[in-house]
Amino acid sequence: MFGRFLPREISFFDFFEKHAALTIEAAQELVAQISKERNTLAETNRIKALEHEADNITHLCLEALHKTFITPIERDDIHHLISRMDDVTDCIDAVADCIVIYKITQMNPEVKQLAHILFSATQEIAVAVKGLRNMKNAAAIRESCTLINKFENEADSILRNAIGRLFDEEQDTRLIIKWKEIYETLEEATDRCEDVANVIESVILEYD
Amino acid sequence: MFGRFLPREISFFDFFEKHAALTIEAAQELVAQISKERNTLAETNRIKALEHEADNITHLCLEALHKTFITPIERDDIHHLISRMDDVTDCIDAVADCIVIYKITQMNPEVKQLAHILFSATQEIAVAVKGLRNMKNAAAIRESCTLINKFENEADSILRNAIGRLFDEEQDTRLIIKWKEIYETLEEATDRCEDVANVIESVILEYD
Amino acid sequence: MFGRFLPREISFFDFFEKHAALTIEAAQELVAQISKERNTLAETNRIKALEHEADNITHLCLEALHKTFITPIERDDIHHLISRMDDVTDCIDAVADCIVIYKITQMNPEVKQLAHILFSATQEIAVAVKGLRNMKNAAAIRESCTLINKFENEADSILRNAIGRLFDEEQDTRLIIKWKEIYETLEEATDRCEDVANVIESVILEYD
Repeated sequence: MFGRFLPREISFFDFFEKHAALTIEAAQELVAQISKERNTLAETNRIKALEHEADNITHLCLEALHKTFITPIERDDIHHLISRMDDVTDCIDAVADCIVIYKITQMNPEVKQLAHILFSATQEIAVAVKGLRNMKNAAAIRESCTLINKFENEADSILRNAIGRLFDEEQDTRLIIKWKEIYETLEEATDRCEDVANVIESVILEYD
Repeated sequence: MFGRFLPREISFFDFFEKHAALTIEAAQELVAQISKERNTLAETNRIKALEHEADNITHLCLEALHKTFITPIERDDIHHLISRMDDVTDCIDAVADCIVIYKITQMNPEVKQLAHILFSATQEIAVAVKGLRNMKNAAAIRESCTLINKFENEADSILRNAIGRLFDEEQDTRLIIKWKEIYETLEEATDRCEDVANVIESVILEYD
Repeated sequence: MFGRFLPREISFFDFFEKHAALTIEAAQELVAQISKERNTLAETNRIKALEHEADNITHLCLEALHKTFITPIERDDIHHLISRMDDVTDCIDAVADCIVIYKITQMNPEVKQLAHILFSATQEIAVAVKGLRNMKNAAAIRESCTLINKFENEADSILRNAIGRLFDEEQDTRLIIKWKEIYETLEEATDRCEDVANVIESVILEYD
């Protein structure tokens, strides 16, 4: 798409920032759907469209990587960063799918909390990758990564309580199976945000 | 096994092609077992034997990689390609295991469709890795990779419908748990085929 | 923590050995808890503390890797080895969590066997990484790796029987869900031990 020679104005940082923006939008859409207590197929399709667009950015980024000789950060780091970022968007899409397939109509506090934490984590990813353009931002980038780790710990703690409560209170085993998967996929999405933070932290370590 | 110096006639492409042939055979065996509406332990053992043989090829390939200084494609790509190919075979074995452990005797349309798609995807993997011997085949290889992606999308769509129908129609929660795992592992096998296609696409990108 | 220049006495082998020791301790704690037929939150917290300490070692190791120009074994191998070792500890922690969240009080033979095999595998990891200090130990290291593979096969076989028995004998579907996850996470922990063995085997291949 960009041809063998990338136009000078297209940079890997553009790919990262565009991807991060799409992921925030997908997370925001998920929060909106969950707070509206319904998730129609049409609404899930918006998340799917964002996921496809993010997927496309990932492919273009990897294609550009193969055609570029000198990269602003290490080749492997570019590959890992965009791949891990794409995992986050895939997880968000998987949660939206679950809600539709399982015909979930009534939400609960835990799923809302998990979705909100995920949204916050995707916002910090955007802050961190924006910072990568200038390694003088290392301290601020590190702060965003620390926040993402904090969000992941919070999501983990909410998940544990949610699963415990589910087995204690829910009588319908089929609903236990459904909710368990929704909670776990939401929490996995914040795990994937932490993977992104880990790649970013290793990138800035090299420029310390 | 090959000693420090590999005989000239053993090449990495031989490992890829042999592995791909074993995986097709395992997928074919799975299709046959599923269409026969039964899966005895003896039949599963044939898949397990194929999986072990494929595993052995993987180890020999990695061992050869460590003992070879000049490789026909990038070292990392050889490592990723044979490892991702092995993941496919592991998944096929896991499906066969599930069917035996869960004592599944009656099959359904969805499981047959998923197994057939998986079989088709393994055939395209064989076409693609055979093509790697000559980078002039890049267009044909890319076509196989595109087909594998199409198969993965089909499998994903079948899985979603199958899970939906399972929760709507199956009254026995234990059977829901069993079938959910069989469907998901079959779909995961086509996901792993897509991972193989992604590695292959990145290999040919470098030779464009 | 170690600053830009690592003190001469800190080596990557120290990180590996310290991490392996913490993982043995976590596995041992898990065995003790399971044999005591109870797992209080206080006891799980000891495993969590060990997991956090192991996590910290992993971060220090990766930080040291980024600040070191000449490494005793290949950079990628150091990265993979400590990361895969950390996955083992994470799995042990996940099992302990499960037991608490699911309020499991009565243990069974399979869970005890799986925990014991896991403990044995972590001991062999310690033997293998200790051996890495001197490549003359290659034969002994390989023996530990073979043992770890054997343990993984044993765990896999116990898991299959345990799952089969669970679906045959357990009437409470909620308990099926709980035990299935505990068994699978324990078996996954030995899978992760095998991943560690695979990295170690590839390290010594290069020094053959």
